Amino acid sequence: MSEASELYQRLLAGDRRAAARLISMVEDGEEGAREALEELHKHSGRAHIVGLTGSGGSGKSTLACRLAQEYRARGKTVGIVCVDPTSPFTGGALLGDRVRMQELSGDPEVFIRSMGSRGALGGLAVAINDVINILDAFGKDYIIVETVGAGQVEIEVVKYAHTCIVVTMPGAGDEIQAIKAGILEIGDVFVVNKADRDGAMRTLADLEMMVETKPGGVGAWKPTVVATVALEGDGVEALVAEIARHYDFLKESGTLTRKIVGRMKAEVLAILSLQVSEAAGRALEDGGVASSLVDRMVERDIDPHGAAAELARELDL
Amino acid sequence: MSEASELYQRLLAGDRRAAARLISMVEDGEEGAREALEELHKHSGRAHIVGLTGSGGSGKSTLACRLAQEYRARGKTVGIVCVDPTSPFTGGALLGDRVRMQELSGDPEVFIRSMGSRGALGGLAVAINDVINILDAFGKDYIIVETVGAGQVEIEVVKYAHTCIVVTMPGAGDEIQAIKAGILEIGDVFVVNKADRDGAMRTLADLEMMVETKPGGVGAWKPTVVATVALEGDGVEALVAEIARHYDFLKESGTLTRKIVGRMKAEVLAILSLQVSEAAGRALEDGGVASSLVDRMVERDIDPHGAAAELARELDL
Repeated sequence: MSEASELYQRLLAGDRRAAARLISMVEDGEEGAREALEELHKHSGRAHIVGLTGSGGSGKSTLACRLAQEYRARGKTVGIVCVDPTSPFTGGALLGDRVRMQELSGDPEVFIRSMGSRGALGGLAVAINDVINILDAFGKDYIIVETVGAGQVEIEVVKYAHTCIVVTMPGAGDEIQAIKAGILEIGDVFVVNKADRDGAMRTLADLEMMVETKPGGVGAWKPTVVATVALEGDGVEALVAEIARHYDFLKESGTLTRKIVGRMKAEVLAILSLQVSEAAGRALEDGGVASSLVDRMVERDIDPHGAAAELARELDL
Repeated sequence: MSEASELYQRLLAGDRRAAARLISMVEDGEEGAREALEELHKHSGRAHIVGLTGSGGSGKSTLACRLAQEYRARGKTVGIVCVDPTSPFTGGALLGDRVRMQELSGDPEVFIRSMGSRGALGGLAVAINDVINILDAFGKDYIIVETVGAGQVEIEVVKYAHTCIVVTMPGAGDEIQAIKAGILEIGDVFVVNKADRDGAMRTLADLEMMVETKPGGVGAWKPTVVATVALEGDGVEALVAEIARHYDFLKESGTLTRKIVGRMKAEVLAILSLQVSEAAGRALEDGGVASSLVDRMVERDIDPHGAAAELARELDL
């Protein structure tokens, strides 16, 4: 029996170490992972994937922990994936968050994994999706995907969650203006965390107005705004209720299937892009089948777009 | 004469509006841009591309403006590309930065362009590179690429600049620890901005120690640390000197060609990934040549990796 097939059988039997090992194999791009993922796919599709994003300092990690605790109190199991590709610049709050996460990780029914920016561009998106699918097959009822940054990869990942939570905090006035630009479309539930601070009412009112004016046809989901103080646990029950209400909406309106399809398509595109990029990288290396293209670019005989077109022919793309 | 060929001729003759129009065409993915880029490539390769990155609030935009002013005072021309794909979450400092940028933009020899997260994942990286190449062909001596966020796309772009500046500020102690993780490798010059604040000496000392212990063989570049107060213009001359010293090093050591080649390869890979991702996206759409793959994934008959492999065969990849 191959390591992969042993791993997925242990994983399906509830072995945490098997899950952890398989995730490491995925992160390291080990060959065997592919076979296990294929088998596990048949057992996934049951979890509610909840994305959690927002500006730095808004308390996303604390909120993720509180959500997990609330789900555990209700007898549900939870996976948390912390995506932190921006680690080079993250601030000092990180340590405290990790300590809180550690408290949680004493619970065998909570599985926590942090993922950094390993590997090439595109590699991270593929790995995050694989990890979500592994935790899904592992039987977690809820998978919370928390992204620290707001780079494109992270936004893409959160966008394809079933329910996307956008976290902000009081006094972030300019930020709320900025939210309009890009994040309003992807938020299903908005949270004003640290709502015991000055200016919370104002921020709540601003967000509610934005949500009211969000375009959407008849029968579309109207995002809701929830006030929380994650450190104290205030508002977390209300947030859990909103997440459940959104999931019910997705199922009743038939939108859930569309979300699932959207995420699967995004997964396929990310995998293909990565494969092509890796193959092209090898071809352009010294001694690769298309290394002369590099010389021609340096001599300004061909531009990168032209070289890409030639390389596509060379690789039979 | 096609619009593209008229545009690049006007651009090479120094017409700012032609440059702006071509950049818009690139951002919007207009067909004609491709032809113009091909022609312009023959005229690019002269600019010194300077990447500028660092944590939010460290004053990167102000520093970019000061650098531009210093270069202008020395009779050099400057292009500034502000990459801000994280705009949904940027804070309140932005407005002031943009005002400073506007002051600068009264100067016809400074060309400033902000780029947001238009288009799909991968599209931004391609567009940024195209814009850099346009400004290069337009004859700018220095092209400063400032990235607001630290997502993978931004880090990739800065990584392939000729000289990469990493900006931090006093008191960012945890952050400097975090810098070790990912950014130390890509920084050629480190800046402690806001160096008139408490704790500046400590932050400088910490960074210098990190730089000292950075691994590097005989003859490798040793990154330097510069203290600045960008708002007052303090230290900007020293920073310009360091940037020049690094560029001289690149030329004398032969590393510049390696940097140029690295950037060109990255450009080709980004273009190919984007094209494949777009083609695959079309194939998976309802009515597309591979739409049945989506149904099979939903039925859990095939997993995303398997679907990607089938799609690759379908598209003759």
